[in-house]
Amino acid sequence: MSRPPALPTTPEQTAALDLLRGGDRFVLSGHMRPDGDCIGAEAALANVLRLLGKEVWIINPDPIDRQFDYLTGPNEYRVFRGGDLPRHDVSVLLDFSVLSRCGELGTALEASASKKLVVDHHIHEGEAWWDEAYVDVTASATGLLCYRIATQLGVELDAVGAAGVFTSIVTDTGWFKYSNTDAETLRTAGDLVARGVDSSALYDSIYQRQRSAHPIETSKLLASTEYHVDGKLAIICAPREGGAAVSPDSDDALDILRSVAAVEVVLFLRELDGGAVKLSARSKKDYDVNALARQFGGGGHRKASGATIEGSLAEVRGQLLAAAEAGFQGAGA
Amino acid sequence: MSRPPALPTTPEQTAALDLLRGGDRFVLSGHMRPDGDCIGAEAALANVLRLLGKEVWIINPDPIDRQFDYLTGPNEYRVFRGGDLPRHDVSVLLDFSVLSRCGELGTALEASASKKLVVDHHIHEGEAWWDEAYVDVTASATGLLCYRIATQLGVELDAVGAAGVFTSIVTDTGWFKYSNTDAETLRTAGDLVARGVDSSALYDSIYQRQRSAHPIETSKLLASTEYHVDGKLAIICAPREGGAAVSPDSDDALDILRSVAAVEVVLFLRELDGGAVKLSARSKKDYDVNALARQFGGGGHRKASGATIEGSLAEVRGQLLAAAEAGFQGAGA
Repeated sequence: MSRPPALPTTPEQTAALDLLRGGDRFVLSGHMRPDGDCIGAEAALANVLRLLGKEVWIINPDPIDRQFDYLTGPNEYRVFRGGDLPRHDVSVLLDFSVLSRCGELGTALEASASKKLVVDHHIHEGEAWWDEAYVDVTASATGLLCYRIATQLGVELDAVGAAGVFTSIVTDTGWFKYSNTDAETLRTAGDLVARGVDSSALYDSIYQRQRSAHPIETSKLLASTEYHVDGKLAIICAPREGGAAVSPDSDDALDILRSVAAVEVVLFLRELDGGAVKLSARSKKDYDVNALARQFGGGGHRKASGATIEGSLAEVRGQLLAAAEAGFQGAGA
Repeated sequence: MSRPPALPTTPEQTAALDLLRGGDRFVLSGHMRPDGDCIGAEAALANVLRLLGKEVWIINPDPIDRQFDYLTGPNEYRVFRGGDLPRHDVSVLLDFSVLSRCGELGTALEASASKKLVVDHHIHEGEAWWDEAYVDVTASATGLLCYRIATQLGVELDAVGAAGVFTSIVTDTGWFKYSNTDAETLRTAGDLVARGVDSSALYDSIYQRQRSAHPIETSKLLASTEYHVDGKLAIICAPREGGAAVSPDSDDALDILRSVAAVEVVLFLRELDGGAVKLSARSKKDYDVNALARQFGGGGHRKASGATIEGSLAEVRGQLLAAAEAGFQGAGA
């Protein structure tokens, strides 16, 4: 029934697969505040390695969100609190490629004599420092690379491993909405559902766990909508309330702003405690919000990036609007 | 590269396929206010039939929304305004099975001597009245049935036909969110993308055509949120403004209410001109909103239904809340 895999393997990938086959004890690590792709990829690769008889520890700099707790069954998502790492042959970095992005854990991994393998779909800036890498920047999710690895190593993921890949895919494609949703992404998702992944239950767990206050909080965010640059730039703000920063889940509000035909770029400014502002920037098409965020010491992807910027909400807002408008002129977007 | 189709054909389906093979001139029709599934299925089946050398007219009781105008290329979506139908051998009803659901067009189709074929994924209540039917109530979309038909008739859909099937799938599964999203749905979507469907462009066309007022309108809807039955029932209202009915796009607001963990049922009441109220009801799990809507002369699916109810907003609101609360007790939901 299942399609034969058509997976040409590069020499780099072959070396990475050999490292996975050859090791006995693995530490899998993700970046700070690990997201669904990171956590899902860890669940998937842990599944692959355990099916091959290896010992596996998942150790992250931060805990996982409870919306992903359906992945915890066989997996203990340990949080690094200093001290010694378990003795291991291979450290695998999932969904990132720079050790500093996992804080103190990065220092501990660096100090370890283990071989280092990067499994990632992000562009790496700077020199290759790892022993091996399994990287494809065209892949929609790191979890999809773990699915390829499973196929190439001849392993059938179990229910939790399959749910891991599905989690990676749906969280990094905005549930199949973003332009990185390619044929492989959808077909793999179909294969995973055929294999028993309950997509409705996962949707429920990932996206339908909002608090009862969420609709009102989203209403407030949307009420702050302002347009600039002929309606191409939309900005919303969450000022502090009663002297304290608020942290509404802004994903729905940002999606709604992006659904406006004229809008190309959306900026969300959240006033933090202590005189700083958190920027989340989203682009629908050509505008590069990574370049915008980098001007303010942040970064991310072309279509989604962020920064933390010193200053009052009004100051930061003014600076950002000026920079974003200049970006429209520069890019001719 | 493509999987061999594994499509067991029932005797009923074989007879339906024979009717499609045998006819020369076809009228394809959808229900009133044709939705994405209806319009997409028409584009797909028209493509199949034309590739087999048939003449095809698409005639609906109502025009299509402009968000679907990427399907119009080879297709003229005619609107029935009375008068004679083109001479034809076979009328195909897509996405419905009761002629009265296409108004006057239904009367004209009934009066025609053509053979009647129903292609649908809804439950039909009452007796079978048609000549042939290609029905599968487990299919996520009528367009998916057209994809099966294409495969069974050995036809390769062109770009617009493929976009038709994709449109059907994504509009009837809430872009893969609803529980009807099965393996066939996702794999077919993957096949369609591999065949050139630009899912990002379709997402853009279907979902990112909102007016600039949409965020503020959604903000207002969400600001009206009220919870009942221990937070399981959420209700929002759109009263008339300045003496006139408003018609905001409520899909986003309804999705946000459903994303609240405690919420099981969402009711949206829109005050119409002339002393009536339009109900849209959505259910996340077991609660049957079709049963609720039927008490008020409406209907739909278990998880999505609607009704138009005589009375003031306050009156209708009270009646609906009482009926909905009783439903919670009755269903033990």
